[in-house]
Amino acid sequence: MPDLIPARVGMRLEEVDTPALLIDLDLLEKNLERMVEDVKDRRVRLRPHAKTHKCAVIALKQIAQGAVGVCCQKVSEAEAMVYGGVRDVFISNEVVGRPKIERLGALARHAKVAVCADDPIHVAEYSRAAQFYDADLDVLIELNVGANRCGLPPGDALVKLADLIVASQRLRFAGLHAYHGAAQHLRTWTARQKAIAAAVGRTMEAVELLQQQGIACETITGAGTGTYPLEADSGIFNEIQPGSYVFMDADYAKNLDENGRPLQAFKQSLFVYTTVMSRPTADRAVVDAGLKAVAVDSGMPLIPALDDVDYRVGGDEHGQLILHDPGRDLKIGDKLRMVPGHCDPTVNLYDWYVGIRKNHVESIWPIAARGAIL
Amino acid sequence: MPDLIPARVGMRLEEVDTPALLIDLDLLEKNLERMVEDVKDRRVRLRPHAKTHKCAVIALKQIAQGAVGVCCQKVSEAEAMVYGGVRDVFISNEVVGRPKIERLGALARHAKVAVCADDPIHVAEYSRAAQFYDADLDVLIELNVGANRCGLPPGDALVKLADLIVASQRLRFAGLHAYHGAAQHLRTWTARQKAIAAAVGRTMEAVELLQQQGIACETITGAGTGTYPLEADSGIFNEIQPGSYVFMDADYAKNLDENGRPLQAFKQSLFVYTTVMSRPTADRAVVDAGLKAVAVDSGMPLIPALDDVDYRVGGDEHGQLILHDPGRDLKIGDKLRMVPGHCDPTVNLYDWYVGIRKNHVESIWPIAARGAIL
Repeated sequence: MPDLIPARVGMRLEEVDTPALLIDLDLLEKNLERMVEDVKDRRVRLRPHAKTHKCAVIALKQIAQGAVGVCCQKVSEAEAMVYGGVRDVFISNEVVGRPKIERLGALARHAKVAVCADDPIHVAEYSRAAQFYDADLDVLIELNVGANRCGLPPGDALVKLADLIVASQRLRFAGLHAYHGAAQHLRTWTARQKAIAAAVGRTMEAVELLQQQGIACETITGAGTGTYPLEADSGIFNEIQPGSYVFMDADYAKNLDENGRPLQAFKQSLFVYTTVMSRPTADRAVVDAGLKAVAVDSGMPLIPALDDVDYRVGGDEHGQLILHDPGRDLKIGDKLRMVPGHCDPTVNLYDWYVGIRKNHVESIWPIAARGAIL
Repeated sequence: MPDLIPARVGMRLEEVDTPALLIDLDLLEKNLERMVEDVKDRRVRLRPHAKTHKCAVIALKQIAQGAVGVCCQKVSEAEAMVYGGVRDVFISNEVVGRPKIERLGALARHAKVAVCADDPIHVAEYSRAAQFYDADLDVLIELNVGANRCGLPPGDALVKLADLIVASQRLRFAGLHAYHGAAQHLRTWTARQKAIAAAVGRTMEAVELLQQQGIACETITGAGTGTYPLEADSGIFNEIQPGSYVFMDADYAKNLDENGRPLQAFKQSLFVYTTVMSRPTADRAVVDAGLKAVAVDSGMPLIPALDDVDYRVGGDEHGQLILHDPGRDLKIGDKLRMVPGHCDPTVNLYDWYVGIRKNHVESIWPIAARGAIL
């Protein structure tokens, strides 16, 4: 069930209840603009991934600035976007099972919907649902470009699958989904460059195989926040899917640029706001954000204002702050901004964004697709 | 926002949409009964922790079988329990900040409410709110018995805090909260025994210090699923707070008994139900449950039916299954039960329990306090 709303518009930041998920609106807007700038001179369309923000309000802002639509990972996420006003969604994932396939077909009556396949089973089911709902579905084949998750390698099976899509009623073969998830968090520019060069090679190979059969790839889509300049400049990708750039996180902050320095393009705009609830010893404080308020799968959250303080998991509802300076003035009731280790699963723990500008609450946005896992 | 309901009562298990959180109702009921049996011959009250299940339906079952009430970690969790029918809640945690303190005081008009303190600031705020709402609050002092999270050690500060509670309007000093969280997952019985022996020693010390000042501890409460027989037999604890025993998880399954064998008292009754969505290679399958569907902070989920298959994180929405037997027959669309690594934060990812008996859906229960972090 949705939790209580932790703030009201007009409140001062210090009055916001905790744990709360804050957006620094100035920085969010800078990140959105920066990506538009970055894409402008490149021959690629921008289709940001909505799995990061799960919020139709932010998706519509991205689209108003020129994005062609959004990506989603789940049908229920796509429903939240479409019924929140988005007209063009790409489910960058395979959809399996009767209830989801029904909803996928039905959704295609209300918006332009594309979806991935890597097996003839997917295609047969998509075609059945599209016919039943008298709707059209775009289908992209997922290509394994190195992440070794879903997806086919370039080869006969891929060509056969494209043939099948072309021959299937109410389906349109729309191209290739060639996302290299594992490359996004490689720390050095060189490592990411190498991984994406290999991904581009495999993608070209697949495109050529299909061309030999007279099948054109309208869309070649992929890339994330960590690698998108590489795919965008590859000459073969014509669509990119970055998601995390809107918010960033402590894990992405570890990525280095060509000169070995932290990437500066996007600013941290998302914060978990937390309160000191206990101050039992000089070297320890306890805050009210634990495993249920901040994701730790990619590392601990950081506290930018207190660089001599480390966060450690203190359980499901507690965070331990280790104070390396015991003279540090930190009292019960003090509130702190933390940078989550991983933005996407942290967002999924909250029902509301509290948008902050000039230290006041300006917006309360529902995280409409929070928990949308079906 | 709550996600779609993944099932209907009467469905066969195989029809349930995924990812879904399944309860094996027979096993849940066995676990509930086993704890009642275990407590019956001991001089302790049972106050299960509702942070595990977050569901008033289960809380009321526990109370119907003799539990005196439930524990919660957050005011919003307590609200979900009280407004779901629970008459007696103990917030086994400090509550800080105006919005929460107001709700705490207001809630005490609708049920018997107890809360923790480890600092005079907590006490002053609790008393103010209790007076404002013309309500009574029980306050327990949190004792640090070895977990080194919140809580005071036995000593002068503790005695002074008890004095302050006794002297505060509309507050009643109700005793000590002496929970040793860090001891619950110590693997050997000897290690847990040693930790709880130390915790019992500290608790006795605190009780005696208070007695010397003429302050009696009505309630000495603590213990979790990993250690509760030790606290229950200590002669000093008169209330226990186990939570995870209702469901269990892969982490608790690693605890050993006195003979070095896995604990058998409680059965795994909670499962994440997931579907194979891609089968790209002979040694790999991909399922639709990733970081947003199963908590991995305490280790990977297990798949009891496939003991030669390992789960690895495949991202926010994907799980990778590594098949050590490439001949393993596992097809797209096949559904599997997984045992979560850690039950509490996994529950917090879902809005609905799907209760299964004899392979059919018997109940859909709302996880009313899912996401209740305020």
